[in-house]
Amino acid sequence: MTFRNDFAIWVKDFQERVTDAFEEIDGGSQFEIQPWTKPEGEMLQGHGEMRVMRGKVFEKVGVNFSHVHGTFSEKFREKIPGAMENNGKFWACGVSLVAHTANPKVPAVHMNLRRIETSTGWFGGGADLTPYFPYAEDTKLFHDALKAPCDIYGAGTYDTYKKAADEYFYLPHRDEPRGVGGTFIEGLSSDDLMKDWALIKGTGEGFFEAYTKIVNRRKDEPFTEADREHQLIRRGRYVEFNLLHDRGTKFGFETGGNTEAILMSMPPIVKWP
Amino acid sequence: MTFRNDFAIWVKDFQERVTDAFEEIDGGSQFEIQPWTKPEGEMLQGHGEMRVMRGKVFEKVGVNFSHVHGTFSEKFREKIPGAMENNGKFWACGVSLVAHTANPKVPAVHMNLRRIETSTGWFGGGADLTPYFPYAEDTKLFHDALKAPCDIYGAGTYDTYKKAADEYFYLPHRDEPRGVGGTFIEGLSSDDLMKDWALIKGTGEGFFEAYTKIVNRRKDEPFTEADREHQLIRRGRYVEFNLLHDRGTKFGFETGGNTEAILMSMPPIVKWP
Repeated sequence: MTFRNDFAIWVKDFQERVTDAFEEIDGGSQFEIQPWTKPEGEMLQGHGEMRVMRGKVFEKVGVNFSHVHGTFSEKFREKIPGAMENNGKFWACGVSLVAHTANPKVPAVHMNLRRIETSTGWFGGGADLTPYFPYAEDTKLFHDALKAPCDIYGAGTYDTYKKAADEYFYLPHRDEPRGVGGTFIEGLSSDDLMKDWALIKGTGEGFFEAYTKIVNRRKDEPFTEADREHQLIRRGRYVEFNLLHDRGTKFGFETGGNTEAILMSMPPIVKWP
Repeated sequence: MTFRNDFAIWVKDFQERVTDAFEEIDGGSQFEIQPWTKPEGEMLQGHGEMRVMRGKVFEKVGVNFSHVHGTFSEKFREKIPGAMENNGKFWACGVSLVAHTANPKVPAVHMNLRRIETSTGWFGGGADLTPYFPYAEDTKLFHDALKAPCDIYGAGTYDTYKKAADEYFYLPHRDEPRGVGGTFIEGLSSDDLMKDWALIKGTGEGFFEAYTKIVNRRKDEPFTEADREHQLIRRGRYVEFNLLHDRGTKFGFETGGNTEAILMSMPPIVKWP
């Protein structure tokens, strides 16, 4: 139980550091903080904190912390490692972030870090970048930042999780990638809990450093009406991915999660012309 | 084969009559007509015609005709009546319509009429209304128009299909109906092919007459910026429903349908603030 507590404290702190930094970049706007609790007696118990800022640089950014426990439905638990052995009981803690930026030259981004425990336990997470006007140097910076903690973890780690991101963040109905990828870590569960956690921490910190650099670098880039229009249309792909394919969204709904928190990932304004 | 041909001719004619009437209401705008064919040798063969108008009254309206045949995938055919007995072979013809109107006082609408044949065959279809500012008299007019052909078909018909619409056009993650419903007809397959077809025809004609009346009645209704904002936000529910729940959308993607035609239902501009 001590590890669970340590992890939750670190995740909450990460949420606070990121939101503080984003407020500073935005120069005046503030996150709206909405704590929530799920009462005892439901399928899902626990608490969380949804933080949303509607700013000048960050048109809409949500950073959600959640720390829950409960029982998976009979049907759902069959799909979750170790859940049958545990009568469906689970514990989960994580943070997820989606940023939709005002300037179309600043990429949108998605990041999440999480741990789930049933009769077994594993980490997951990763980050991926969705530029509407890709700059090679931004993509490289982002990829390098996610590669560093993977390289510390071990040979082949980055290739595995980069490939997983490329496969996951893909829209089959359009035969298009969602963005330029990043890493997508699932089922991380070696013999060394601290080593695994270090990879998740490093992923979070790498994302944080790289993305704030990219935002600062691009936020005052000039853009045209046509650039903005392109951004609003490409955001439609983001919506399509999240509602048609994203496993996190499905997981959230299937486990009775907070609808507003789950759909915080939706862009503030979107066009399908 | 004669019936298939007759049905396809009627459906195509329906598409043309509806688009002509909508152009007249819009007073100057025109549908863009995009015929498409799926070449032989793919899972899906056939042709269709996507008609889209971006007008003053109809901000975006798509009316799609399709007439296809092909083979369902091994996995998909298990879910379709009569498809296993037929090695997955099917024939399908139908028209689907989604209208998103500029004035928030004019309801959005969805309608479709179709026939599918495997080793057996059935009709489906219906129409449902999504007002952002519901007027009781509009809802009544729409419901009455869909009830009339049901009453000709037989006692209890309307109750069955109205209930099906209320159950289907529902967002469980928000615990909200999508709109005010209508009828939702599935698996219509009695001994009397002509009687079944008459119900589908009557549903189309009832929708056509009632909806054009409603649009004409409301298109010049005054509205505020706040009304428009409300409409753009409520359109998000439409997107959520179609991508998370709609079986037609899933069916389209799973059978290799035309992505642009399937996603023509997406509203032109949407907000998730």
